Amino acid sequence: MNAAPLSPCDTLIRAGTLVTQDGQRRVLTDAGLAVKAGLVTAVGPWAELAATPAGRTLDLSADIVLPGLVNAHTHAPMTVFRGLEDDLPLMEWLTEHIWPAEGRLSEEIVAVGTALACAEMLASGTTAFCDMYLFERTVASTASDIGIRAVLGEGVFDTPTPSTPTQERAFEKVDELIAYCASRPLLRPCLVAHSVYATNHPALLRLDRIARDNGLTLTLHAAETATETALCLERFGKRPIAVLEELDLTHPGLLVAHAVDVTQEEIELMAARGVAVAHNPRSNMKLASGMAPVKAQRAAGVTVGLGTDGAASNNALNMFAEMGAAALLGKVREMDPTVLPAQAVLDMATVDSARAVGWPELGSLAPGSPADLTALRGGLPHLQPLNNPVSHLAYAANGGDVRLTMVAGSVLYEDGRFTSFDYPALLREMNSVRKWLAGA
Amino acid sequence: MNAAPLSPCDTLIRAGTLVTQDGQRRVLTDAGLAVKAGLVTAVGPWAELAATPAGRTLDLSADIVLPGLVNAHTHAPMTVFRGLEDDLPLMEWLTEHIWPAEGRLSEEIVAVGTALACAEMLASGTTAFCDMYLFERTVASTASDIGIRAVLGEGVFDTPTPSTPTQERAFEKVDELIAYCASRPLLRPCLVAHSVYATNHPALLRLDRIARDNGLTLTLHAAETATETALCLERFGKRPIAVLEELDLTHPGLLVAHAVDVTQEEIELMAARGVAVAHNPRSNMKLASGMAPVKAQRAAGVTVGLGTDGAASNNALNMFAEMGAAALLGKVREMDPTVLPAQAVLDMATVDSARAVGWPELGSLAPGSPADLTALRGGLPHLQPLNNPVSHLAYAANGGDVRLTMVAGSVLYEDGRFTSFDYPALLREMNSVRKWLAGA
Repeated sequence: MNAAPLSPCDTLIRAGTLVTQDGQRRVLTDAGLAVKAGLVTAVGPWAELAATPAGRTLDLSADIVLPGLVNAHTHAPMTVFRGLEDDLPLMEWLTEHIWPAEGRLSEEIVAVGTALACAEMLASGTTAFCDMYLFERTVASTASDIGIRAVLGEGVFDTPTPSTPTQERAFEKVDELIAYCASRPLLRPCLVAHSVYATNHPALLRLDRIARDNGLTLTLHAAETATETALCLERFGKRPIAVLEELDLTHPGLLVAHAVDVTQEEIELMAARGVAVAHNPRSNMKLASGMAPVKAQRAAGVTVGLGTDGAASNNALNMFAEMGAAALLGKVREMDPTVLPAQAVLDMATVDSARAVGWPELGSLAPGSPADLTALRGGLPHLQPLNNPVSHLAYAANGGDVRLTMVAGSVLYEDGRFTSFDYPALLREMNSVRKWLAGA
Repeated sequence: MNAAPLSPCDTLIRAGTLVTQDGQRRVLTDAGLAVKAGLVTAVGPWAELAATPAGRTLDLSADIVLPGLVNAHTHAPMTVFRGLEDDLPLMEWLTEHIWPAEGRLSEEIVAVGTALACAEMLASGTTAFCDMYLFERTVASTASDIGIRAVLGEGVFDTPTPSTPTQERAFEKVDELIAYCASRPLLRPCLVAHSVYATNHPALLRLDRIARDNGLTLTLHAAETATETALCLERFGKRPIAVLEELDLTHPGLLVAHAVDVTQEEIELMAARGVAVAHNPRSNMKLASGMAPVKAQRAAGVTVGLGTDGAASNNALNMFAEMGAAALLGKVREMDPTVLPAQAVLDMATVDSARAVGWPELGSLAPGSPADLTALRGGLPHLQPLNNPVSHLAYAANGGDVRLTMVAGSVLYEDGRFTSFDYPALLREMNSVRKWLAGA
């Protein structure tokens, strides 16, 4: 099981339960896990690993340890809009509340919102996220300072944004972000269009070329609602996935966020082309976008990751809530309780999200994996009795159970405290955020 | 606002944010709340109440205080089955896993399961629950020892159960439970049939007579699935609600759990008759029972409370998760994001559940209310910025945010510790529960 189980490590972890998400989906009891230089170096029974020389030992022997969750689609800075307005018709919400506030965005607000998002994600077990928004270079530096892992792309729109007054400036920012990430192993750039209707086709093709040339992920919103489909049919004479196909964007490396309003034929096309999907069930429900055909997508062989979308439409960045929502929505959509079982949604939140965002090494704990993990307090009442740890992760855990989160071997969150930034200072900035919002 | 704001109290609470759920649905900032002899005696600005003579003061000035949530439908002892089996076809799950385990139930297992359920509910902000199961006298004494509030009924079935070898014995247990609760102000008895198909009609009528004679709630499962409707049509020539109507059970005091497969005509009948509903969205999704027409029920004037159902089909007893699920499922069912706004699902989890279970004094914090409340750590990242506390309760809170829960003026849970029972000892009993389950 281990090449060299007793070679010295930086951190030796004893886990009461270890959900590995490895190739065999092993769940170990009283397990050991050794970490060195940010990587997992050994996984096995504690009895075998206990004698490993270690810089420090983490006693998680009462806890459930699992790979850090991978949020395949979010807009981290939007945490500042959490609860700003809810329960409104979509266009009223966007045009009267979200867009006016976004129109006044600044790097300072983006930095605060991103830090808050990172805090929330770390505190609920997420160690990596795929982000698309504005001022993404600021998102990148904030994430980098905190030490969380991220795949990041500056959104390219046809309309001016506070971040990018022209589309040409957006492409410059794309290049700058790629350069910025080059020296930061926890960050990877991606290419981001908003959608086939808000980013013109030459710009889409240019983004795709940059993605292909650099081996990067290209991501955009597509097939989120029937309204979008109608718009595409009117404007292009084609449904959104067909527009992507016509532009030859449907190839491995394309990550489609949502894919709610897709036909069986489109699902099979996405599978054949190696296009991945980020499923966002809570956002799709809250905005009444619809119920994505995830069962059919997975059955066809599409890699379906799981994302929270932004906090304005969720309103949390909690992947445990998202796993539960995915499993429950999938069942009631198909009227079949066997659809999307616990293991499937855990896969979606870990290994499948990792593949979807183009970082397939993430999402499992095996020798050689990045040491990204989280631990839930196993003694909490709602995680007892421990009849089935994977079931508890999907259906009973709530994200508030997290006691520790580690990224690349560094503990970033432990027992309510963040180790890599001044969270109380961030909290104090919320007053200025609220004042800024009130001025919207 | 207060009859005598400065009369001495037992406990004076300073709340950063106080969500009162009073008649005006007021949300106060920097509020005070005085408690005496288990009741709220004053609510108002902290500046006005700060000088109140008090036995003790609770500083919740960084927190969000709200009424304790009321779980309108659960089966507390079933926490022992949490995650036992999931994601199976309904009949396979019931006949091969749940029923065989239930057939071996004992008072000891019921006591352990109930204590675990009470721990989970208190730790996630629930202060009262309506329970229907077997060995309900044991559920009652366990809840009473812990100090949580409960409405409890022994299930009356046509078939023998480990608790009641004959139906006549079940009726004896009903009387015993009513007598037991009489001297315990935190407990109220209710009358419980399983359903119109698993409890014969003379027994239903007998339960209804006891309920009417004693002014108690009668509750049963009805219209949970299309399969149940088909069974009722085959056996009685009528749909479930029509069977209840024919038996003259449709009157105020009847609480129908589920009401998923109901027609508009049946909804209007329930509204006209004053029949209440317990909506269980997570259970209805997990078992693929369907999406209850809650918008239509509320529009017709039906009181719709919120319940978790048992932990075997949820798999949590977390009313925050249930509020979120209710709001999100309601929107996607109707494909309308304005359906079931945050305030509506908070109402369902508090005042509406309280009325549904027949304890209308619960669910709000105003002078004269029972002092049942919970406090969320307001400084947690997912509750920031505090743009809208009610939105955060419905969409962002996860139940793990609870730092304190009080029932009738007694703090039963605070900062991870239970004050009224030995939780570590309960945890140690989980091994015997798992051994018991393995023997099933």
